[in-house]
Amino acid sequence: MSVFSNKTKQIELTRNRYPDLKKGPYADLTGQDVDYFSNLLPGRVLTDASDLEGSNTDWLGTCRGSSQLLLRPKTTDEVSKILEYCNGRKLAVVPQGGNTGLVGGSVPVFDEIIISTQLMNQIISLDDISGTLECQAGCVLAALDSYVSDSNLTMPLDLGAKGSCHIGGNLSTNAGGVRLLRYGSLHGSVLGLEAVLASGEIIDCKSTLRKDNTGYDLKQLFIGSEGTLGIITAVSILCPQKPKSVSVAFLGCESFETVLSIFKQAKHSLGEILLAFEFMDSASMDTVRDNLNLTSPVSEFPFYVLIETGGSDGKHDEEKLTAFLENQMSSGLISDGTVATESTKIANIWGLRERMAEGLMVDGYNYKYDVSLPLSKFYQLVDDMRDRVGGLATRVVGYGHVGDGNLHLNVTSPQYDEELMSLIEPFIYDWVSKYKGSISAEHGLGFKKRNFIYHSKSKSAVDLMKRMKLLMDPNGILNPYKLLPDN
Amino acid sequence: MSVFSNKTKQIELTRNRYPDLKKGPYADLTGQDVDYFSNLLPGRVLTDASDLEGSNTDWLGTCRGSSQLLLRPKTTDEVSKILEYCNGRKLAVVPQGGNTGLVGGSVPVFDEIIISTQLMNQIISLDDISGTLECQAGCVLAALDSYVSDSNLTMPLDLGAKGSCHIGGNLSTNAGGVRLLRYGSLHGSVLGLEAVLASGEIIDCKSTLRKDNTGYDLKQLFIGSEGTLGIITAVSILCPQKPKSVSVAFLGCESFETVLSIFKQAKHSLGEILLAFEFMDSASMDTVRDNLNLTSPVSEFPFYVLIETGGSDGKHDEEKLTAFLENQMSSGLISDGTVATESTKIANIWGLRERMAEGLMVDGYNYKYDVSLPLSKFYQLVDDMRDRVGGLATRVVGYGHVGDGNLHLNVTSPQYDEELMSLIEPFIYDWVSKYKGSISAEHGLGFKKRNFIYHSKSKSAVDLMKRMKLLMDPNGILNPYKLLPDN
Repeated sequence: MSVFSNKTKQIELTRNRYPDLKKGPYADLTGQDVDYFSNLLPGRVLTDASDLEGSNTDWLGTCRGSSQLLLRPKTTDEVSKILEYCNGRKLAVVPQGGNTGLVGGSVPVFDEIIISTQLMNQIISLDDISGTLECQAGCVLAALDSYVSDSNLTMPLDLGAKGSCHIGGNLSTNAGGVRLLRYGSLHGSVLGLEAVLASGEIIDCKSTLRKDNTGYDLKQLFIGSEGTLGIITAVSILCPQKPKSVSVAFLGCESFETVLSIFKQAKHSLGEILLAFEFMDSASMDTVRDNLNLTSPVSEFPFYVLIETGGSDGKHDEEKLTAFLENQMSSGLISDGTVATESTKIANIWGLRERMAEGLMVDGYNYKYDVSLPLSKFYQLVDDMRDRVGGLATRVVGYGHVGDGNLHLNVTSPQYDEELMSLIEPFIYDWVSKYKGSISAEHGLGFKKRNFIYHSKSKSAVDLMKRMKLLMDPNGILNPYKLLPDN
Repeated sequence: MSVFSNKTKQIELTRNRYPDLKKGPYADLTGQDVDYFSNLLPGRVLTDASDLEGSNTDWLGTCRGSSQLLLRPKTTDEVSKILEYCNGRKLAVVPQGGNTGLVGGSVPVFDEIIISTQLMNQIISLDDISGTLECQAGCVLAALDSYVSDSNLTMPLDLGAKGSCHIGGNLSTNAGGVRLLRYGSLHGSVLGLEAVLASGEIIDCKSTLRKDNTGYDLKQLFIGSEGTLGIITAVSILCPQKPKSVSVAFLGCESFETVLSIFKQAKHSLGEILLAFEFMDSASMDTVRDNLNLTSPVSEFPFYVLIETGGSDGKHDEEKLTAFLENQMSSGLISDGTVATESTKIANIWGLRERMAEGLMVDGYNYKYDVSLPLSKFYQLVDDMRDRVGGLATRVVGYGHVGDGNLHLNVTSPQYDEELMSLIEPFIYDWVSKYKGSISAEHGLGFKKRNFIYHSKSKSAVDLMKRMKLLMDPNGILNPYKLLPDN
């Protein structure tokens, strides 16, 4: 739910902010429809406007839909019956997990029915030898991490929203996060899933096997398709061994070139124990200091680097990290830094990085970008943007996952500003496209970025996507106005 | 090319061995067709029966097609023009890389035109900071590994056929191999690809970015679809840092339970430096000893384990491995073993495991199975099979990737034996299905296993596969009689 939930009524309705966008060829909800769902899901149907407020509004407070119905199924069969009915009636739906998405993908644009996975939160099994966890789509990421932790395992992904995001939503958006550097993407770590197509048909790809080469890997279709091809209802995922020791180093750097030099050295010297390599600029540090009262553990620098290591032998890991840091010190790349091995101190350092999104929202409106770029061009975009928007913006900040070439660029202003927006877009997409980057590294396209897809995807690829959408959801009821471009 | 290439004429034609299978609704090749291709690919069109012999026959010598035409394009555009023409004429094709497949997927069944990637062997680029390699589909895996090795990188997959298999074929079959335990599957490590659809349309998904969430991850469709949805022409893949030190331990074990105990301990104690965990039974050791004159570095045991470690600090790795082995010795799990750190000795030990397929072929006909099973049931299948086939078989051997739950079960006999075959199939598929395993962990379905797909995939999943095939290859010209079941 939005931290601005008491302010949701002040947020402009998406249908009003984008007057050119028209509702698709979908039916309007009737009392008969509501009766059908009330029979199917007794006590789990919400129709009261105030009950729907949080689910109609995205976490950033930048999109607001007008859904009149929220459904809370508990089982895959219920999801199947819901979709079969909606498909027959041509009622559009939006699947919703923790509603922590940042591109307007998890909230209605018009009056789509919200199908929430909130009550689909059962853990099905955990095999602690192979590390395979099976669960329903609505389990919260942090709850899963805590559960598998008892078996010395860890979830292969970690992100700021872990306390509320659902694993089904993580898969649907192919969430990345801070551990991707070490554990790879969900396309590699998800072993199986179950999804329901628009027709209500249940697609069972619930393998718990590490290897299974029996035909097309259909589960991959649903990973990252943002609920437009089917609704994921269950997941099986490979959990790596939990590191026996974890250390975090937080370092001040004089330039972005230094950040890159340290990254190259870290890959080489820390190798298999490198868990995360994050950076933030001084404007980012100002944000969490000004807006959240967080304090930096090091003196002021233009850039900061957060390095996390974890392995199976604490002594070895410490030796590697110490040797690495001493090398960086003696070569003059680092002049100030701190190392934490104690969990509270580690959490405090991570807080600087993970609470950035929260800190930025305090400024008012947040123009949020999440791009992949070649490392050589990585920070230049932030400088160029800062020059371009000048005094119109409250802040222009850059931070993100250097190790994955993934920059989070954020601009803020007191409220939504059409002029500022016109300076940012399409400039940023053209810039990223010029350097063959991705206009959405991990957040997805959702509602806000879908029409910029051609900046990152070829026409042939988008055409094939459209044909697949038509094949799997011929009436287009699944999360319309999302991911696929208008043209 | 088959080691039996001088004997290919003795191998029964697939069309004769399976008389119930009829050629699909495809055109027959005409002189005009050959003229078209000769103009398109001057000097790169083979029509002589003796030139086509090796490409008509699979490596195992168990399938033999009757193609009269082999094409050797050099560029994606040429592949596009070939397919556009074939699609218009309804001429069926089979894409072929190194022709090292083990399920009859890479050779014609009837007279399909062979499209070889042999001349598509250009490396396009290597970014040694991010570790991204771009190349054409016909590059040989070992050649790529050698190339990236100069930049202290390694290919994320390794398998016995590395000296001849093509990277495009690796992707098409979602090859696994001995390093999957550490580096994960190709669904995670492939960053982008280019593929040509049956229509000739080129699908450009050539991202070199680690993260790109802009729409459906179309490249995943082509990984593991065995050339039935499109022909992969170029690849970009993430290469991990090459370990600075590598050690191999080869251990004798008294029981399969001991193998499993050692595996659990290895995961826990060796953690992030564990590169491979392989096992072989005594019948496997007999095979390479009897048929290839290889010698075991340890005394005779019912089971053997091969553990490979690699990391960024040789001293740390050695300490971890030594401590681990001492623990296993003192707890009585291991009584004989050897450790190698020198490359020739490492290669000799790996030879025992990697030359197994070659050793088995010396027996004559090889009934080859590659299944995933829960570890608790893993070796029981070998015992059950041995009991079942009795004296009809020359050998029944079990070896494979314990770390991935992947068993290679092989039965041999002097020549193809209908009675023996009827004892093995469908018994083995029923057995695997009963324990929710996969009937093909890494070899794919190809020609030989496609009709057993329902033992591992639900009807809903197979139906969706069929719809996708129809969408992407409406005339069914791409690698027919492969992967998808007859019904």
